[in-house]
Amino acid sequence: MALARSGIELRCLCIDTHSRFIHPKFIQNVRLIQSGPHCQNVEVIATLKDGKELCLEPTAPWVKLIIKAILDKEALQLF
Amino acid sequence: MALARSGIELRCLCIDTHSRFIHPKFIQNVRLIQSGPHCQNVEVIATLKDGKELCLEPTAPWVKLIIKAILDKEALQLF
Repeated sequence: MALARSGIELRCLCIDTHSRFIHPKFIQNVRLIQSGPHCQNVEVIATLKDGKELCLEPTAPWVKLIIKAILDKEALQLF
Repeated sequence: MALARSGIELRCLCIDTHSRFIHPKFIQNVRLIQSGPHCQNVEVIATLKDGKELCLEPTAPWVKLIIKAILDKEALQLF
């Protein structure tokens, strides 16, 4: 588990990031959290369909691809 | 307000979508919610820094640009 829990986000939520590809069909939603005073990193948190939350690396090409696939349903058919 | 509230997401959350460009500096985070049995639409919900939540149109080019900008901090400098 690479996600630190806090009621209000006053610090980074991700301790480290999941490095392996996750098929978009296992992903329920993705949160993109801007960097700011609470955390200097952009954070990408995927909630899987089984309820697990995983931090993803914002700069990883596969993460960008998954986000593109979610936004563009046509792209999902490529998987 | 174009966001329907429900404790558990058993239906679409967005009633309609915000059509005007929002500068990424006003956005705190963005949630991408996959389509599924609960809702046939992909939903993109931006939380602004003032706490307001807005539904965005997943296929709008400016929405994709904002998401790209959040993922790629370098791109933010273009704004």
